[in-house]
Amino acid sequence: MMFGRRDDSFIRGQVPMTKAEVRYISVGKLGLQQDSVVYDIGSGTGSVALEIAGLSSDIKVYAIERKDEALDLIQKNIDASGVKNVQVIQGEAPEALEGLPVPTHVFIGGSGGNLFSILQTLYDGISGSLLRVVITAVSLETLEEMKQVESWFGVKDFELVQIQTTRTKKVGSHRMMQGENPIWICSFTFEK
Amino acid sequence: MMFGRRDDSFIRGQVPMTKAEVRYISVGKLGLQQDSVVYDIGSGTGSVALEIAGLSSDIKVYAIERKDEALDLIQKNIDASGVKNVQVIQGEAPEALEGLPVPTHVFIGGSGGNLFSILQTLYDGISGSLLRVVITAVSLETLEEMKQVESWFGVKDFELVQIQTTRTKKVGSHRMMQGENPIWICSFTFEK
Amino acid sequence: MMFGRRDDSFIRGQVPMTKAEVRYISVGKLGLQQDSVVYDIGSGTGSVALEIAGLSSDIKVYAIERKDEALDLIQKNIDASGVKNVQVIQGEAPEALEGLPVPTHVFIGGSGGNLFSILQTLYDGISGSLLRVVITAVSLETLEEMKQVESWFGVKDFELVQIQTTRTKKVGSHRMMQGENPIWICSFTFEK
Amino acid sequence: MMFGRRDDSFIRGQVPMTKAEVRYISVGKLGLQQDSVVYDIGSGTGSVALEIAGLSSDIKVYAIERKDEALDLIQKNIDASGVKNVQVIQGEAPEALEGLPVPTHVFIGGSGGNLFSILQTLYDGISGSLLRVVITAVSLETLEEMKQVESWFGVKDFELVQIQTTRTKKVGSHRMMQGENPIWICSFTFEK
Repeated sequence: MMFGRRDDSFIRGQVPMTKAEVRYISVGKLGLQQDSVVYDIGSGTGSVALEIAGLSSDIKVYAIERKDEALDLIQKNIDASGVKNVQVIQGEAPEALEGLPVPTHVFIGGSGGNLFSILQTLYDGISGSLLRVVITAVSLETLEEMKQVESWFGVKDFELVQIQTTRTKKVGSHRMMQGENPIWICSFTFEK
Repeated sequence: MMFGRRDDSFIRGQVPMTKAEVRYISVGKLGLQQDSVVYDIGSGTGSVALEIAGLSSDIKVYAIERKDEALDLIQKNIDASGVKNVQVIQGEAPEALEGLPVPTHVFIGGSGGNLFSILQTLYDGISGSLLRVVITAVSLETLEEMKQVESWFGVKDFELVQIQTTRTKKVGSHRMMQGENPIWICSFTFEK
Repeated sequence: MMFGRRDDSFIRGQVPMTKAEVRYISVGKLGLQQDSVVYDIGSGTGSVALEIAGLSSDIKVYAIERKDEALDLIQKNIDASGVKNVQVIQGEAPEALEGLPVPTHVFIGGSGGNLFSILQTLYDGISGSLLRVVITAVSLETLEEMKQVESWFGVKDFELVQIQTTRTKKVGSHRMMQGENPIWICSFTFEK
Repeated sequence: MMFGRRDDSFIRGQVPMTKAEVRYISVGKLGLQQDSVVYDIGSGTGSVALEIAGLSSDIKVYAIERKDEALDLIQKNIDASGVKNVQVIQGEAPEALEGLPVPTHVFIGGSGGNLFSILQTLYDGISGSLLRVVITAVSLETLEEMKQVESWFGVKDFELVQIQTTRTKKVGSHRMMQGENPIWICSFTFEK
């Protein structure tokens, strides 16, 4: 599979996972190239990292995660998928980013309350080059932080959308509608 | 309270309840008058019946319900609210409707697979007068039936909308978004 | 009609109107009584004021609006509906509220950038009594202000929900789905 | 760009286009391989065909479209993007599919009222092999047809979801929420 893993193809445990629809949109909004260098910050189960890594073996993905339980899952999911281009980084962003190659694209699925300092570190690290960033939010507080990115930093192509997925599930002879929690997705390009 | 009961003001048990937002919209789409005669078919907890009854003591409401557990809840909710103008009818529509006064407005929150025969019975019962009907659906099958009402019967002011409510819940310092299941609401006026 | 006016029953012009579904929910969340005293701030076409006034002739409604075009529409809609219990107040809240009877319920459909000062004025005006408030938002900025109400004031029963309505429209033999803009609805009770 | 084209990167004219979010999800649900053979039926602007073609130069994409205006746009968009692996097929499915290589994956963004016969033709064409299909719907009628796929054909991994995107647009100092029309996405694997 190049792109489009199913949710049930990942080992999940109790770790929250970016669901298929939001995962595909998030990867799409990154606008990846054949040789992109990507951080997946707050990698969780590693589902976004694996989706990205599958696109091209020349893409380098760094999956940053602070929680032991999740780190274990990411490694299991990497092993199960057979991809060679995801490196797991244990630790908390932004500290854990130190020493990693400068990224071309960053996905932030979880920022542990450090969104501003993560973005500041990323922004400081670019020099002339562009950096594409995609962030997801499930709380109104993170939505508010997203909104402020435009005023905090030099950005272009800023976009903020809400995605609401409704699944359907057969119960007897009826197909019931089941609303997922809405997710906000913020995407932009850092430029100095 | 005239109108606008809270969900937690009803005793619920395990019986499904039309939640506040859909309840208010459904009552609104009925377009009730001071002296309306209303059926609440598949009354569940009686929440819609009570909301309607509270609007005016001159409105007569018949809460039709087949399940024992729900009948018990309806009566408890009526007793707790102190309204005098809801009569509980035990049985399954359309049979259970026999002998009741001709309605001016009907809300169908649950049809037990009998939607067509219920509508046919209601349609047969009007003579020259108009009858306003509001139906809610949580499955694609009921949505399909709603769509066919226009071709089955003589109707005017037919409308079909989907409502998706997202609640927010404080978890620690964050307010999380929680999607409810979407509900389809069909409303129309029978005319011969 | 007691409750449940249709959107096309109002004369609208170019003035924005709270659409039927959000209007019914907003009135429901107010939880009105037979003798409530209600402000409709940023009344627009007067649709919410008229919906409330129709519930009981003993309810007193004050429709506050600053724009001439809207004031004209409100008066036309009042005249067309025949209700006697809506008084139109020309001016900008909170200044325009001075001298009006103390309200029991307030709906704020538009605050012209003065939401905090309107709420402060309302809060200062209650003395021992409770005041129920419902606010709608179509922008992320107003959503953020809503969120802060809990920390600004003494409130109970605070609730914040998003409503997304999808209409359907027949085009040839197909019924197309048409998404409305989502609306956030905040409701709470001021208490000192 | 490998994956994740922006909507404004396509020349559109008056031809309807599968918007970015639904395009990314649709491509994701296809679950493409390095050497997939893909039909894009009802290609419109060619946006889905180009998104798929960009994933790998070994993927073969056939963009089938009946309308002259759209055919012209597809070709312009292909030329602008520089991809070499999209072949434009003029005509109406299923007739236009005759003589094309057997596909591994099919996206149906528009079926011109022929959904059943297109699916029947595709189903007849597989022999032992699997065929992955993704269909989008904007009308309740197509939604109903999607639902029937499970009973018409031998399928596995059948899924039916609704996606609702809300955009935000800066108007003065406020970021307004703007609801898109909801889209239903059906995905499944044909197997005999």
